Amino acid sequence: MESKRAAQRRGRAGVQHERDLALKLWEMGFAVIRGPASGAKAKRILYPDLVAIRSGTVYIFEVKTRVKEEPIYIERSQVEKLLEFARRSGGKAFIAVKIVGSSGWKLVPVDMLKPTRGGNYKVDEEDLSKALSLKDIHAEVLGAKRLDEFIGDRGDKK
Amino acid sequence: MESKRAAQRRGRAGVQHERDLALKLWEMGFAVIRGPASGAKAKRILYPDLVAIRSGTVYIFEVKTRVKEEPIYIERSQVEKLLEFARRSGGKAFIAVKIVGSSGWKLVPVDMLKPTRGGNYKVDEEDLSKALSLKDIHAEVLGAKRLDEFIGDRGDKK
Repeated sequence: MESKRAAQRRGRAGVQHERDLALKLWEMGFAVIRGPASGAKAKRILYPDLVAIRSGTVYIFEVKTRVKEEPIYIERSQVEKLLEFARRSGGKAFIAVKIVGSSGWKLVPVDMLKPTRGGNYKVDEEDLSKALSLKDIHAEVLGAKRLDEFIGDRGDKK
Repeated sequence: MESKRAAQRRGRAGVQHERDLALKLWEMGFAVIRGPASGAKAKRILYPDLVAIRSGTVYIFEVKTRVKEEPIYIERSQVEKLLEFARRSGGKAFIAVKIVGSSGWKLVPVDMLKPTRGGNYKVDEEDLSKALSLKDIHAEVLGAKRLDEFIGDRGDKK
């Protein structure tokens, strides 16, 4: 287990990385909104860290910062919150992992997370090696836009 | 002009009303995210107060609390921020007005705001009398969902 001070240090670094991710997504043309600080009082609704939207396509991110590649454990309630947000919005939820010192983000789809014996979830090293990048997301959203434009021509959903 | 203390009082009441609006939208089935406190440090991106999404349909809200119906002045930069967020997300932006003591919200579309001589914008009493309610938004999003379902049957955009 890490000390309280180590957790606080990680928390501050996490906020800075979260801002960097928000800025990168904004520069890619997304509308971006960061959730309120996790210390917020009103807890009847749990907000994700970051939501990015482009032309009705929605991506939801929970940001995790680590100093090295290692399994990341995520509470069941947090996974359920992300999946519920994705369900309502029609979007896709990711754990966005920043390994400190590495460039880029590793985006792990929440619906791929493996359950632990204790009923929570984890991102393991295999998930990290197969994770998506911001470029993949960008390509997908540009592709989705083209697909929409084709709907009028194709005429049905077959 | 109001005193600094009056502005602080309004700020605290505003946050409480913003939370209430978030909760109402959540109960209507929207995915909801509140932006970070407006005192946040990193200002390269300006976030709206609240974003609500349902099945890819996006509503953006800037929350204003007033003790009575009176013209509400909004800075040009804030209006531009909301319109840019709406453009990127494919959503609709509203000024969400809470008159303290009245039930319900008055939702004024940002693209209907009147410019002032000084280059800013205002919500006047006529706008408030014609504003939408949360019920209108709810009906629209339910209707939009049905329209999507019709696309496969109709076959083209004519």
